[in-house]
Amino acid sequence: MTAPLPPGSTIGILGGGQLGRMLAVAASRLGLRCHIFEPGAQPPAGDVAAATTTAGYDDGPALEAFARQVDIVTYEFENIPTAALDRIEALCPIRPGREALRVSQDRLTEKTWLTGLGLKTAPFAEITDLPSLTAALQDMGTPAILKTRRFGYDGKGQVRIDRPDQAAAALEELQGAPAILEGFVPFTAEISVIAARGADGQVAAFDPGENTHRDGILRTTKVPATLPKRGVTDAVLIAANILNALDYVGVLGVELFVTPQGLIVNEIAPRVHNSGHWTQNGCTVDQFEQHIRAIAGWPLGDGTRFADVTMENLIGDEIDRTAELARDPACALHLYGKRDTKPGRKMGHVNRVARP
Amino acid sequence: MTAPLPPGSTIGILGGGQLGRMLAVAASRLGLRCHIFEPGAQPPAGDVAAATTTAGYDDGPALEAFARQVDIVTYEFENIPTAALDRIEALCPIRPGREALRVSQDRLTEKTWLTGLGLKTAPFAEITDLPSLTAALQDMGTPAILKTRRFGYDGKGQVRIDRPDQAAAALEELQGAPAILEGFVPFTAEISVIAARGADGQVAAFDPGENTHRDGILRTTKVPATLPKRGVTDAVLIAANILNALDYVGVLGVELFVTPQGLIVNEIAPRVHNSGHWTQNGCTVDQFEQHIRAIAGWPLGDGTRFADVTMENLIGDEIDRTAELARDPACALHLYGKRDTKPGRKMGHVNRVARP
Repeated sequence: MTAPLPPGSTIGILGGGQLGRMLAVAASRLGLRCHIFEPGAQPPAGDVAAATTTAGYDDGPALEAFARQVDIVTYEFENIPTAALDRIEALCPIRPGREALRVSQDRLTEKTWLTGLGLKTAPFAEITDLPSLTAALQDMGTPAILKTRRFGYDGKGQVRIDRPDQAAAALEELQGAPAILEGFVPFTAEISVIAARGADGQVAAFDPGENTHRDGILRTTKVPATLPKRGVTDAVLIAANILNALDYVGVLGVELFVTPQGLIVNEIAPRVHNSGHWTQNGCTVDQFEQHIRAIAGWPLGDGTRFADVTMENLIGDEIDRTAELARDPACALHLYGKRDTKPGRKMGHVNRVARP
Repeated sequence: MTAPLPPGSTIGILGGGQLGRMLAVAASRLGLRCHIFEPGAQPPAGDVAAATTTAGYDDGPALEAFARQVDIVTYEFENIPTAALDRIEALCPIRPGREALRVSQDRLTEKTWLTGLGLKTAPFAEITDLPSLTAALQDMGTPAILKTRRFGYDGKGQVRIDRPDQAAAALEELQGAPAILEGFVPFTAEISVIAARGADGQVAAFDPGENTHRDGILRTTKVPATLPKRGVTDAVLIAANILNALDYVGVLGVELFVTPQGLIVNEIAPRVHNSGHWTQNGCTVDQFEQHIRAIAGWPLGDGTRFADVTMENLIGDEIDRTAELARDPACALHLYGKRDTKPGRKMGHVNRVARP
């Protein structure tokens, strides 16, 4: 596919959560329709999409019918089963491409690939059993963190190890899942860069945002980040390096630790990212439209930041703050229309905007 | 209804064109769902709505089923048949209310009502036949413009009369529709004010925009308008006067002529308005979200303008300029996803943004 998708084309989105929802809204601005594929009933993205398929990722015929009805397929999360991707790709191009998924689906593959690119990561080791964990802990010291190689998000699938004698219990907690041990990095801040690469190879990056977490879940992202000018340049160059190495098309999020020794890559996400939500109220073209433009083969848009923004997630019953936040003129609300409120569930976010 | 609609509620929208589409997108940001009622197949708003009813405004059962499934009904155009509104209102509140529709559906009623409020309009006269037209032309002079009292938009249902001997032909062109004769007003500019009134009576107005037309269709709206400071205040006060007199809830557009003798009201539209599209890229809360906030009983949002914007409509095959406009970093694109391109049809618009 080389020609840009014309208005009226249909984008298939794997996953119907809030990221799919905001991608669908961005696509509508460009005159593009969206078709959501999502196993769960009544997905948030379905409320703003032209069509929704409710089926599992193991439902071959549903995947194929979906792929036949759309012009390009993208995704809002990286843990899509390989077999599902194979089914789709036989009928319809997937963007960003498979290499980005292969690399980012597995923490060990990802860190190995990043260091191969000459980028710094936290120390890490493959863990297959107690002896390999014990050896790695001896090497790396404590504290360290044992993580499943796959399917982790929002702090799930992670166990902190503070003393070597906790090794066996930690391994047990992961229930035999393939694992990786990561050393702790003393950092002064965590930042992320949301960057995009067009089908023509053009690269653009939004200003880095500074993140805070609680209970393993992103709480806030603030732009501008507290960073020396050099840090901004370095962060953007790292993101561009990754995008080019993957021959990537779309938006990608890179989480970085700021340390006295420079920037260390924490992880990458081959998709729009929670820490890029501030762009909705800080840029003419936000991360969602930038992603749609890229995968549709359109030129990238203008992501220059025109305001200072602090994005705050509304998690669980924080959605009840809506009435108060709606009254605050500095707050731009973005709610996800989720049917049920659950602890730890991202229900919406608010962008607090300050004009410079 | 006094309590604000909680997230998860459903807004019914009469009309599935681009205004309904952009209202639905704005509603999604607030966690609200939309249900579109539209006689035409595949309406642009249906692509971003949770549900669509395809039925005519004379289909009582469909109107009633629609009204039962939504929490509030609003509309994207003012020419909704009264009987349809009656059917709906028996089951579900309509916002903005009926008085705004009654006044704005009929040019004669509207102008009479506006002058009753102490506002200036162009000279006008009710026309029922040739003698009344001849008499009015004698009174008002030429040029003058004969318009149908109802169902006119984008220059349709209007005939310009340059000489008294054109009266009979002009009347014939309107095919016996009830009519009004309007005198020409020598104006230096046409501006419009998009203003909102909340369920609590709070009023807010966006900065006035300056409009240009071609062939009776809005071409561009520019903010800031070329107006003395006094003109801005006057325009906003006129809009507030109208909103309060109608006990209005929602967004309303007021078109005004700028004349050496002050501002003259051209017409009002009880809905979001094409000349307010610039707010999408010039304000944190745009006219669409402002309308949704108002009709949902939420507090009005912050419509302070933070950029200079020129909105340009893409009409007919101007949609083919998309590729070029997508490359221009100053341009924010808003396409409507309409299936067919027709001459005179609004296919999208572009907001050219200049940071002050």
